[in-house]
Amino acid sequence: MDSVTALAFANATHSTVHALTVDYGQRHDREIIAAEVQAARFADRHDVLSLRRIGTLLEGSALTDTVPVPEGHYSDDTMRATIVPNRNAILANIAAGVAVARGLDAIVLGVHAGDHPIYPDCRPEFVTALQQLLSVANDHQVRVEAPFLNTDKAGILRVGLALGVDYAETWTCYQGRDRACGRCGSCVERLEAFSNIGVEDPLEYEL
Amino acid sequence: MDSVTALAFANATHSTVHALTVDYGQRHDREIIAAEVQAARFADRHDVLSLRRIGTLLEGSALTDTVPVPEGHYSDDTMRATIVPNRNAILANIAAGVAVARGLDAIVLGVHAGDHPIYPDCRPEFVTALQQLLSVANDHQVRVEAPFLNTDKAGILRVGLALGVDYAETWTCYQGRDRACGRCGSCVERLEAFSNIGVEDPLEYEL
Repeated sequence: MDSVTALAFANATHSTVHALTVDYGQRHDREIIAAEVQAARFADRHDVLSLRRIGTLLEGSALTDTVPVPEGHYSDDTMRATIVPNRNAILANIAAGVAVARGLDAIVLGVHAGDHPIYPDCRPEFVTALQQLLSVANDHQVRVEAPFLNTDKAGILRVGLALGVDYAETWTCYQGRDRACGRCGSCVERLEAFSNIGVEDPLEYEL
Repeated sequence: MDSVTALAFANATHSTVHALTVDYGQRHDREIIAAEVQAARFADRHDVLSLRRIGTLLEGSALTDTVPVPEGHYSDDTMRATIVPNRNAILANIAAGVAVARGLDAIVLGVHAGDHPIYPDCRPEFVTALQQLLSVANDHQVRVEAPFLNTDKAGILRVGLALGVDYAETWTCYQGRDRACGRCGSCVERLEAFSNIGVEDPLEYEL
């Protein structure tokens, strides 16, 4: 949800958009299939980068390892099991490297306010520090854009629907099963956002 | 040279050392073979991470692409062709992710003063910004150590020789041929360092 809406936002606000999807060994590789569909619509170019070996090194997260995916609310303390160590610093720096290589101006991240309680690498101070790092790490300057940094999931949904995003073609669930589980933190947060804006989620759930 | 000396330094100053070698598609994969030899001696654990696909995305560098490797002095402007976009930010953040996953205290980087003219991601401001990013990106704190940040290559060599590093088992050349070329910036800088301290380089050269 966050990623595709960030992509649609980038498409609406930039002349050229390159999408980068990273397979870092997450259980929910359904999100990679969904990314292909969305990128075909909103991006001028799409690369899928397989970094599954990194996933095996970043052991201990429920998203990449054999630790069970916790159920409950996204902001619960139990969701710490879904933290992938240093994930956004790794992903954003790879994206920035691609941007430098191609002479692109900015990277756009889908981090949002709902992430802040649990994930340190989604907070405003992370975005500020990342911008500072990029400003000194390369001669070519890359701007960090995080349009939803102070927005909640309901706000993201409103923006995405306005921009014509088809949320039936997205994957939010942390599990990698045929249908979304409806019980993991990520599903709970998504369903709450649809409920908050009074729109029915077009996705099918196990529940 | 820088990496193995940093590894030997880490081994002398820390109780546990995990070495991480990344194959990012560089021409000189001889350095990966050399890393295995050195890690067997100076590290408690060694992982080799293949990120060759990243190399294809970070197009345009002489180290990963079909651009010719420039000859001349390491600090020459022509060496800009050997810049891999955002390289150290990507590598250091992967290392930091591994450190967070394993509860390790620090990452040790081999960046040094001789790198500063050409490579922005080896300068003191890069190390400072990286430390700041890591301090906000994860709950587990990882310190950035760059023992050679203000040291030149000759100083690195003196430290390494004192710590018993066997420089016959290292690979510095940017080319990936059977013997080191002796003419690329990296070879020139290495030979200069040995010459400066009055020691003969144990490596065989094409020259």
